[in-house]
Amino acid sequence: MFPVSGLFTTTSHRRLLSKITCLHHHHHHHHLRVLSTTTPSPPPPPPPPPTLELPLCHPTYIIWGSNTGIGKTLVSTGLAAASILSPSPTKFIYIKPIQTGFPDDSDSRYVHRKISEIFLHRNPPISLFAANHALKVSLPAAKAVLGGEFESEEGKKCESGLRDLGWYDERRMGGEEGVVAKSELICKTMYAWKEAISPHLAAEKEGGAVKDLAVLEMLQSCLGIGLEGGGEGKKNKVDVWSVIETAGGVASPGPSGSLQCDLYRPFRLPAILVGDGRLGGISGTISAYESLILRGYDVIAIVFEDHGLVNEVPLLSYLRNRVPVLVLPPVPQDLSDNLMEWFDESQDVFSSLKEIMQSAFLERIQRLHGMAKKAGDIIWWPFTQHKLVPTDTVTVIDSRCGENFAVYKGQNREFITQQFDACASWWTQGPDATLQVELARDMGYAAARFGHVMFPENVYEPALECAELLLEGVGKGWASRTFFSDNGSTAIEIALKMAFRKFSFDHGILLDFLNADIAEKCIEFRVLALKGSYHGDTLGAMEAQAPSSYTGFLQQPWYTGRGLFLNPPTVFLCNGIWNLSLPEGPYSKNMKLGDITFSSRDEIFSKTRDRSDLAASYKSYISQQLLQYSGLSEFTCIGALIIEPVIHGSGGMLMVDPLFQRVLVNECRSRKIPVIFDEVFTGFWRLGAETAAELLCCLPDIACFGKLMTGGIIPLSATLATDAVFDAFIADSKLRALLHGHSYTAHAMGCTAAAKSIKWFKDPRTNPNIISEGGLLRELWDVELVQQISSHPAVQRVVTLGTLCALELRAEGSNAGYGSQYARSLVLKLREDGVYMRPLGNVVYLMCGPCTSPEICRLLLNKLYRRIEEFNQVKENLKFCEI
Amino acid sequence: MFPVSGLFTTTSHRRLLSKITCLHHHHHHHHLRVLSTTTPSPPPPPPPPPTLELPLCHPTYIIWGSNTGIGKTLVSTGLAAASILSPSPTKFIYIKPIQTGFPDDSDSRYVHRKISEIFLHRNPPISLFAANHALKVSLPAAKAVLGGEFESEEGKKCESGLRDLGWYDERRMGGEEGVVAKSELICKTMYAWKEAISPHLAAEKEGGAVKDLAVLEMLQSCLGIGLEGGGEGKKNKVDVWSVIETAGGVASPGPSGSLQCDLYRPFRLPAILVGDGRLGGISGTISAYESLILRGYDVIAIVFEDHGLVNEVPLLSYLRNRVPVLVLPPVPQDLSDNLMEWFDESQDVFSSLKEIMQSAFLERIQRLHGMAKKAGDIIWWPFTQHKLVPTDTVTVIDSRCGENFAVYKGQNREFITQQFDACASWWTQGPDATLQVELARDMGYAAARFGHVMFPENVYEPALECAELLLEGVGKGWASRTFFSDNGSTAIEIALKMAFRKFSFDHGILLDFLNADIAEKCIEFRVLALKGSYHGDTLGAMEAQAPSSYTGFLQQPWYTGRGLFLNPPTVFLCNGIWNLSLPEGPYSKNMKLGDITFSSRDEIFSKTRDRSDLAASYKSYISQQLLQYSGLSEFTCIGALIIEPVIHGSGGMLMVDPLFQRVLVNECRSRKIPVIFDEVFTGFWRLGAETAAELLCCLPDIACFGKLMTGGIIPLSATLATDAVFDAFIADSKLRALLHGHSYTAHAMGCTAAAKSIKWFKDPRTNPNIISEGGLLRELWDVELVQQISSHPAVQRVVTLGTLCALELRAEGSNAGYGSQYARSLVLKLREDGVYMRPLGNVVYLMCGPCTSPEICRLLLNKLYRRIEEFNQVKENLKFCEI
Repeated sequence: MFPVSGLFTTTSHRRLLSKITCLHHHHHHHHLRVLSTTTPSPPPPPPPPPTLELPLCHPTYIIWGSNTGIGKTLVSTGLAAASILSPSPTKFIYIKPIQTGFPDDSDSRYVHRKISEIFLHRNPPISLFAANHALKVSLPAAKAVLGGEFESEEGKKCESGLRDLGWYDERRMGGEEGVVAKSELICKTMYAWKEAISPHLAAEKEGGAVKDLAVLEMLQSCLGIGLEGGGEGKKNKVDVWSVIETAGGVASPGPSGSLQCDLYRPFRLPAILVGDGRLGGISGTISAYESLILRGYDVIAIVFEDHGLVNEVPLLSYLRNRVPVLVLPPVPQDLSDNLMEWFDESQDVFSSLKEIMQSAFLERIQRLHGMAKKAGDIIWWPFTQHKLVPTDTVTVIDSRCGENFAVYKGQNREFITQQFDACASWWTQGPDATLQVELARDMGYAAARFGHVMFPENVYEPALECAELLLEGVGKGWASRTFFSDNGSTAIEIALKMAFRKFSFDHGILLDFLNADIAEKCIEFRVLALKGSYHGDTLGAMEAQAPSSYTGFLQQPWYTGRGLFLNPPTVFLCNGIWNLSLPEGPYSKNMKLGDITFSSRDEIFSKTRDRSDLAASYKSYISQQLLQYSGLSEFTCIGALIIEPVIHGSGGMLMVDPLFQRVLVNECRSRKIPVIFDEVFTGFWRLGAETAAELLCCLPDIACFGKLMTGGIIPLSATLATDAVFDAFIADSKLRALLHGHSYTAHAMGCTAAAKSIKWFKDPRTNPNIISEGGLLRELWDVELVQQISSHPAVQRVVTLGTLCALELRAEGSNAGYGSQYARSLVLKLREDGVYMRPLGNVVYLMCGPCTSPEICRLLLNKLYRRIEEFNQVKENLKFCEI
Repeated sequence: MFPVSGLFTTTSHRRLLSKITCLHHHHHHHHLRVLSTTTPSPPPPPPPPPTLELPLCHPTYIIWGSNTGIGKTLVSTGLAAASILSPSPTKFIYIKPIQTGFPDDSDSRYVHRKISEIFLHRNPPISLFAANHALKVSLPAAKAVLGGEFESEEGKKCESGLRDLGWYDERRMGGEEGVVAKSELICKTMYAWKEAISPHLAAEKEGGAVKDLAVLEMLQSCLGIGLEGGGEGKKNKVDVWSVIETAGGVASPGPSGSLQCDLYRPFRLPAILVGDGRLGGISGTISAYESLILRGYDVIAIVFEDHGLVNEVPLLSYLRNRVPVLVLPPVPQDLSDNLMEWFDESQDVFSSLKEIMQSAFLERIQRLHGMAKKAGDIIWWPFTQHKLVPTDTVTVIDSRCGENFAVYKGQNREFITQQFDACASWWTQGPDATLQVELARDMGYAAARFGHVMFPENVYEPALECAELLLEGVGKGWASRTFFSDNGSTAIEIALKMAFRKFSFDHGILLDFLNADIAEKCIEFRVLALKGSYHGDTLGAMEAQAPSSYTGFLQQPWYTGRGLFLNPPTVFLCNGIWNLSLPEGPYSKNMKLGDITFSSRDEIFSKTRDRSDLAASYKSYISQQLLQYSGLSEFTCIGALIIEPVIHGSGGMLMVDPLFQRVLVNECRSRKIPVIFDEVFTGFWRLGAETAAELLCCLPDIACFGKLMTGGIIPLSATLATDAVFDAFIADSKLRALLHGHSYTAHAMGCTAAAKSIKWFKDPRTNPNIISEGGLLRELWDVELVQQISSHPAVQRVVTLGTLCALELRAEGSNAGYGSQYARSLVLKLREDGVYMRPLGNVVYLMCGPCTSPEICRLLLNKLYRRIEEFNQVKENLKFCEI
C-alpha cells in the first residue's frame, strides 16, 4: 500500500503465461491425488479434503500494519534487501495475497523494482534473479493492464469473476550472462482488484469473489516455492525467506469479508507488526497488537517509522520489553525521492529485524522439535502407560483453529499440518473457528472485567446469566436451582449428596437422625446404576459405578462399589439394521423374546414402545431386582438412581435401550428414589438434542452437566436440581446447608464461555445445524455411508447419534476391551489423513461439534471407511498368511 | 481533539477563582472526614483510604476514539445538544480529564462555545446556563493563558508542577434575566498541558506529573456535580447526563504513562467508541473495540463519520449486530464552516445515540437492581444456608480491578463502590490491576491459539511451560513429574492414589497382589493426618481428614474417615508474644514442658529447634501413636502421610508448630510412608515463601498445588511427584498406569495463566514484594500494628504469615466454631469501610495478593483495628447492660 514511484519499467520484460508454472505444479499435484482414488469399488471414493500444510524449513513471516499506509511495503522491501543483498545466496519470496488499486498500486511490483534499484545502487558482489508475478485479477484490473487485448482474447473465460492474468516481470542482475543467479527474489500478487478500496468492496464491485479457503490454498502453493530451491537441499546452502504482506490494517476485511486476521489464522504465521510513529500511533499500534494476540498470533517484533515522538518508550513499557520495538528513520516526504538514502540509513534496522526474525524462527523450531521428548520426560499424562508411548508418537500441537489441530511434524521434514480433532478434545469441544475467536474475546473480557470473584452469597453477571440459561435450557420444565462446580466428577459427587439428603428427607431418615442420632450408625446408602456407566474419577463418583479397569485395588484401594448395578440392554446398527441386544442371564430367564430389530433409529426412541411386552419385561425385571436387594439388609437402601442417559461414553460408546432407562426412571420415581442424570457427556447437543433427557422422554430430579457446556474451552460444571431437592437443605442451621464447594465455583470466565456457547449452539443464525428454534441438530452423518460402514466385515457395530459416530471393530480375546491396542494402526493411518482419533480399546469414534457441517462429517466418514477397508485387508492378509 | 474555531469569545466573561466551588466542596468534604478521626487514643487513627465511588443515578458515559482526530468532541457536542436543547430541563456535564495543546486546543471550551452557538442558531424554548472551567494546568499552559500576570502572582505556589488555574467561563442564554436557568451545561477540563503532544510527554516536558489515582479522584469529584442538582432530587425532574471525553485513542498514554484504557478502568464506565469511517478505518475501529473489551469495558455504541465507504457493514457483521453502529454525515472540510448545518443534519443520529445510551443505562440499573433477588431465587451457593442470606446482604459484584471489587449498592441511592477483596476471592487471588490486564490478554491469546486440546500423549506449549516452571519452582530439588487436574480436591485424590501405589510397591504389596490376588481382600489403607486439616470436598479427599462439620452423615453419608488423625500443637501471637499451645491429653501425659514462647516468628521456624526436648517429645509421641495403630490390625496400614504444611486453612487459620510437622515427616520417611504436602492453599507465596515446604525445611514425595497457581483467575491444579513415585506406575500394561484424568486436564488457558503468574510473582521487576530472586516476600503486615491487635481484649490470637493475617475473636459457647455468626457485625462494618471479608465462624482474616503493597496492608489493618475497637465496645456495653 505504499506509493509506487514508476521506476524500472524499461529494463523489465513482460510475458503472458496462461499458467504459472510453479503454482500450477502444485495445483496439479493436488488434483492428481484426487484422481488417483477413482477406483470402481463401492462406495464412491471420497476426495481427500485439502489439508493445509505449512513448511517450517525456512523462516516465513506475515507482515501486519496497525493501519493502512503505514509502510508495510517499505518494511518488506527492507527485509528483502537485508536478505538478498547479503553475500550468501538467498531466495526471498514476497507474497502479496490481496492487492487493490491494481495495477496502479502493486506492492509486489514495488518490492521487485525497489530491490532492483537498490541492487544497482549498492552493487553487491552477487548475481540476482528477480521476478514479479500477478496471478488472478478482476476483469477491470485485467482490462487496465492489457486494454482491449485482454477482453477480446479471454473475455469469455471467466471463472468466479477473476482472470488468470499471468502477468510476469523478471530481471537478472549482476554475475555473468547465462550463469544461474546465486540469489533470487520472487514477488507475487495473488489476487488483485482495480479500485483502491477495501478488498471486500472491490470484490463485490468487480465481481471477483474469493473464498477464504481458496486464498489459503493459493498461499500454500506460493509458499511451496520456497521448497523447490534451497529449502530442503542442504547442499545448496541457500537461505530461504518467505514474507507475506497483508492489506490495510490487521482487521481490514479480505475479499470474502472475513477480517484478514481471521482469514490467515489457520497458518498462524509468526507476525511482524508495522506500527504507527505518529501522534495517536501508540494507541493504534497497541490495539492492532492486541487484535493479533486475541487471535493467537505471536508477534515477533514491532517496527515503525520515527516521527520524533519517541513512541517506542510507551510501547516497550506496555510490552514489558518482551517484544522488540525497532524504529526506522523518517521517510522523506518528497515523492520524487527514490529512497536510496533512506534504505541505506535503515540498513542496520532491517538487519537487526532480520536477525530477530531468524533467531525467533530457530528458537521456535528448536522448541517444537524438543517438545515431544521433554513432555515424555516431565509430564505425567492421565490414563496413559508411559512405557507404551514412544517419543515419536507424541503429538505436538502448535495450535487449534475451530475443529482442527495444527500439528507439528518433524521426522523427515519439518512442517505444520492440520488434523481434524475427531475426539472433540475428549468430548468437550464445540466451537467452529468463528465461535473460537468470539470465545477468545469473551475470555479476555471476562478476565479483565472479573478475574475471579468468590461466589457464596455473591452474584455477578456471568454466573447469573449462565444459571438462567441452564434453567431455561437443559433444566427446562423441572430444575430450579443451579449449583456450580469444576468438572463432571465433582458435579456427580454433589448430585449424590443432594440425592441422599432428599431421600433421607422423603423417607423420614433425616427426622430419625435429628431426633435419635441413629442414622449414622445404621443406614447404608447405595445407588442404583447400570453396568458400564462411568461417572468420574474422584472416589465418590467412582463408588457409584460398577467395578471396572478403573476401580481395582491397584487404581483406587478405597473403592468398594456402593451400588446395585444392573446389566442394561443395548441397541446398535449392524449390517444397516438397528438391533436390540439383551444381556445374557436376567432377561433370558424372564422373557421369551425373539430377535428384536427396528426399522429406524427414530423407532427406538418412540414412546409407543412403552406399551410393548418388552417394556413390561423390563419393569418386572427391575422390580424384582429392587425387591431382592432390599431384602439383603434392613439398613441398606437405594438412595439414588444414577444413569448416563442413552449413551455410555467411557464404557465404550454403547447405546442403552432408551425404553429400559425410561422404565427404570419410572420405577424409581414411584419408589421416591431421587433420579440423577449424568449428562456431563451427553448434554448440549452432543447426542443431537439439547439434553439426552429429551431423547429419553423423561425428567430427572438432579442432573449434571459439564464438558461441552462451555463450548469446550474451559472447565466448568453444574448440578441442576428441583426445588424439592433444594428444600431438603433449608433449615435454621448452617450445618444443614450443602457444605460442598470449590474455590473457583462459578468462575466468571467459565460462566461467560458457557453463556456464550449455549446461546451460540441454540441459535440457527449462528449454528446452521439447528433445524428449529432450540431444537434438534440435523443429521450430521451420511445415513447411507453409515449403513455401508455398519455392513463392513471388520465392523462389529455402529452407533451414530448427534455429533457422535462410534464403531466397534470386530475383535476377539485380548484384542477386545479397554486395554486393547487393536485399533492403533487404524488410528495412526487416519492421522496421516488429517483425522485425529483416540480409540477406546477396539472402539473408535468420530466426534464433531454441534456446528460442524455435514459435508465435513461426510469427508471424515469417507476417510474412515477407506482406512477400515485397508485395515481389514491387512488383517485378512495376515489371516491368509497364517493359514 | 477537534479543531476549535475561535467563536463566541465576545459574549463570554472570564473570572479568576482561586478555588472552584463545587470541586472544592467535594475535596473539602473529603479532607474533613480525614481530620475528624484525629482522636488522641492509641494507635494513631488511620486515614481512610480514598474509596472510589461512582454514582448510578444518571447516565454517565466515557467517549473513546479509535484514533486521534476522529471527532470525539463533535460526538460529545452532538450529545450535549441532543440533551440540553430538548424541551425538558437537563443538566449536561462534560468532562475532559486530560487536555494537551492547551489553551489553543480545549475540547471543553469547544463544547461550551459550540453549544451556545447551536443554542442561538436553533433558539429553543428553554433557558440555559453554560459554564466552562479549566482546573489544573501546567506552568507553560498557565503562562499562555495569563501571560506574565500569572507568573508574578502565583509563580511560587507550585504543587507537583501544576497550577490551579481556575479558568472560568460562563454564559446565560434564553429566559428572563435573574431567573434560574432551566438547563445547564457544565464543561470541565481537569488537567491541561501546553504542548499538543501525548499527555505523558507533555507531563514530562512541562513538569506536571499526575498520578492515576489523582486523576480518578478528581474525576470522581467532577462527576459529583451531577448529584447536586437534579440527580437525586426527583421533584426537580432534571435529566442529568455526564460525558467524559478521553484524549487521543483508547490506548494513548495518560499523563503518568498508563494507557488511558487502563487508567480509567476502576470506574469501568460504559463506553461510546468513535470509530473511523476512512479507508483502513474498519481495522482501527475493530482493534480499538477489542482493546476496550480486553479491559472489561462495555461498549454501548459505535459512531463514526461517513466517508462513503460503508464501513458500518463489516463492522455490524463483526459485531453480529449486538452493538449498534451509527453513521454521522460527512463533516465539511472547510475550516470556516461553523458546522451549524452539520449539527442540524446529525440531529437524528445524536438523538438515536442518546436513546441508545439512555436505554442501556436503564437496562443496566434494572439488571443490577434485580440481581440479588434473582440470585437468591435460582442459584445454589456452596457452603451457604440460604435461609440465613436475606436479599439485602447479597453482594452484587459489577467487576473487579486488581485486588478490589466494584460493588453495586442500591438501597438508598444507587452507586458502585470499591471493596478490597480481603478473602482473596477465597484464597485464590494474586493479581494486581496490571497483572490482571496482562492475564486477560493472555487468556484471550490462549483461547484463540488453543481453545482446549486434549492432553494424554499430546504436548502443547502452555502445558509444557507450566510443567517446567512447576518443577523448577515449587518442585525444585525433589519433583520430576507433573500431573494436572482441575482443583485442589482432585489433586489430592490423585496424590493419594500415587502414594498408595508407591507404598504397595515399596512394601511388596504390589507383588503380593500380582502374584496371589490377596491384597484386594486384606489390605486396608489409611492415611496419617492431622486433626483440623482439610483437603477438599470430594469423597476421596474427605476420607483423608478427621471428622468435622463437613463430614457428618447429613453431609456425606459415605464418609468414614480413613485415617489416624493426630492432634497437633499450634503456635499463635497473643499480647504481642508468639506462644506454643500443646493439645490436652497426649502431650501432658508424655512431657513435662512449661509454657513455651518464642522471641519472634522466625524462631518458630528455626532448624535449631530440632535438637530441643520438645522435638524429642514430638518424636516419641508420634512413634508411639504409629505403633499403637499398627497393632490394631494386621492388614490395616498407614499408606500415606498427608498434611497442610504450616497453616490449616479451612480449619480456622491455625498455625501448626512447624517443628511438629518436620518431625512427623521424618518419622514417616524412615518408615517408607510416602509424604504428601497439600499446598493447595499454602503454595505460591501465600505464606510468604514460594512453598510452605521451604518454611518447614523438608521435602515431600508428592505435593498438590492449586488456587493461587493461576494467579487466581481460572481453576487448575497440579500434583507433583518424584521419579520414584512415577516409576511405581510403569509397566507393560495400560492397566498399571494411573487411570485417573479429567477432560480439561492441563487446559491451555489454565496453564497459560499459571505460567504467567508464577513468573510474575517470582520476578522482582514485576513483584516489588520479592526481596531476592525467587525468594521470600517482604513483611506485608505492619509488625507493631499486628502486635497491638494481638493485645486487644477482643482478640484471642493472631497469625500473620505472608499474605495472611488471621485473628480469632474471643468467643465462648455457640459463638465459637464454624457455625457461629459471631463475627457477622464486624464483617458488615468493614464492608462499609471498603473491605470485603468472609469469616470462618469467629475467625476473621485479611488476605492479600503476593504483589499487594505493605501500604495497602497497613490501611486494611488500621480499618480492622478501628472496627475491632468498636465491636468490643458494643460487646462491652451489652455486658454492662446485662449487669
